[in-house]
This record gives sequence, structure tokens and C-alpha cells, in this order.
Amino acid sequence: MGIEIERKFLVRDDGWRTEGAPHVQPVLLRQGYLSSHPERVVRVRIEGDHAVMTIKSKAVGVSRGEWEYPLPVADAAEFLDRLCEQPVIEKYRRRIPYAGFVWEVDEFLGVNAGLVVAEIELPAEDTAFDKPDWVGEEVTHDKRYLNSNLISHPYSAW
Amino acid sequence: MGIEIERKFLVRDDGWRTEGAPHVQPVLLRQGYLSSHPERVVRVRIEGDHAVMTIKSKAVGVSRGEWEYPLPVADAAEFLDRLCEQPVIEKYRRRIPYAGFVWEVDEFLGVNAGLVVAEIELPAEDTAFDKPDWVGEEVTHDKRYLNSNLISHPYSAW
Repeated sequence: MGIEIERKFLVRDDGWRTEGAPHVQPVLLRQGYLSSHPERVVRVRIEGDHAVMTIKSKAVGVSRGEWEYPLPVADAAEFLDRLCEQPVIEKYRRRIPYAGFVWEVDEFLGVNAGLVVAEIELPAEDTAFDKPDWVGEEVTHDKRYLNSNLISHPYSAW
Repeated sequence: MGIEIERKFLVRDDGWRTEGAPHVQPVLLRQGYLSSHPERVVRVRIEGDHAVMTIKSKAVGVSRGEWEYPLPVADAAEFLDRLCEQPVIEKYRRRIPYAGFVWEVDEFLGVNAGLVVAEIELPAEDTAFDKPDWVGEEVTHDKRYLNSNLISHPYSAW
């Protein structure tokens, strides 16, 4: 098991597109859930030419247990199309280096279009980090922004 | 993906212990569910020294899509103890050959003690097969006997 320590923020403006990552190529992620129960999330994700299944335990503070296994892409595609809770999440991810860390900026598509969040993964809960100017309000503890909740309560319906 | 074609029966009496399988060693299975939703079952099972994760799609008739992946036993144990819906299912399984097929006889423990079911996996939905004398009423379509339902509605509470 790994422990995922992650903090999530809204973006303040389009700075992430211009200053942040003019040369960063976005990667399309398709992901869905075989379970979106907060105590036992089972996520299926296709990123480019590979796929993974991720199990997540309940978050305690900003930490969460996480187990990841490779999946055949064909199986993952079948899960996303036929088994997962619908609709599945589609988003462009950009990995933007800044001050020694990598910010993952997710630009959502489909029913969540208009939503952009920036996440940073930390080695410890109390690790200090600098924020780029385009990073705004923290939403780590706002459950509406959980990807597993954006299926049943998409951003377009807020 | 595999297709699982399976029929399930109650046992009529203790014949499976005596005639059926006097020499068959039972194997202890521990299994639990990260999702027991009928359209996307995610089962974790430890059998002896190995573990698997199985994804099952909704059953159509007696057939069901099934995908199976090996899991590290330590991960599976952590899922069963900490993440899966509780209580987990424990049962002794005996594999009993009869007339060209193998019957899996599951003797449940814990909150499902007293329940014994016999299952046969078939190559096609219309495959003919002989039943041993100790095999009784068919319960393939009785959802109470789904292992995933025996957690929330255990046999001891029927």
C-alpha cells in the first residue's frame, strides 16, 4: 500500500495555460468507478496507452491509502463503457513543474466542462510548498470536488 | 473477459460429505466485496496461499461476464480486514468430481453457518449434466444466495 497525500486547489485564472505550461502537452484521462463508496473506491483509468485499477481507502485528513494495479487496456475500456457508474470522467491533465514540485492541472470535459483543479502530491502532511500565482482557493476537504462525486453531481449541475 | 455460466443448488442432505467427498480436502476461502452492486461486483478472495480480484458484470440468464486478476495476498488481506463490506464471507469449499463435471460445495461459516450450496460451472447454457443424489433444489435465480447478498442478509437472519 502507498499513502497518497494530496492537496487540491481551484485555479484563480488562466495563468496555468500561459505562464504555467505553454509547452506542456495535455494527456487525456478517461476514468470511471466500479465503486465510488468513500470507504472503498475502485477506480479504472486509461491514460494514453496504459490502464490502471486503483483502490483507495477512506481519507484521514489529507492522506489516503492507495493500491494500484496495471490493467489490460481492453479490459479497462470494457469496464468504462459497460460496467462503471455513468457518465465516466474525461479530463485533460497537464503536469506542470513549479518550485521543486509537480502540479497536476485537470481540465474537465463533458458534463464537468468549465471545472479546472490543480493538485499537488506531497511526501508528508506538513511539507511546505510554494504556490504559483494562478493557484487559488484550497478545496481539499470539499467533497464536491472528488472525482467520484463529479459523476453523480457534475459541475454543470451545481 | 470470460463468461461464467454457473448453476447453483441447495444440498438435499449430508450425502456430499459421505458419498460425495470422503477424501476431498476442504479449502478455506475468505472473500469480501469492494462493490456488491449487481452491475459491477468487485470481489477479493484469498484461497490458501493465493489471492485474486474478480470483477463481475450483471448476470444475463445464467451467464455473467467475469474478469480475474491476481493480487498480492498481503493486499487482499488488508482489503478484507479494512476496506471490504463487513462481515466478510468465510466458507469451506470442496471440489467434488461427478459424471464428468466438478461440483463446488461451499459450506458457509460465521453468520452464514448452516448454509451449504453446490455449484456447477458449465461450458454452455444448454449443456446437459447429471446431478448427484445429494443435490437438491436449484437456487440459481434466487438472489438471496448470492454471496454478495449474504453479507447484508446473512443466512442466520433469514
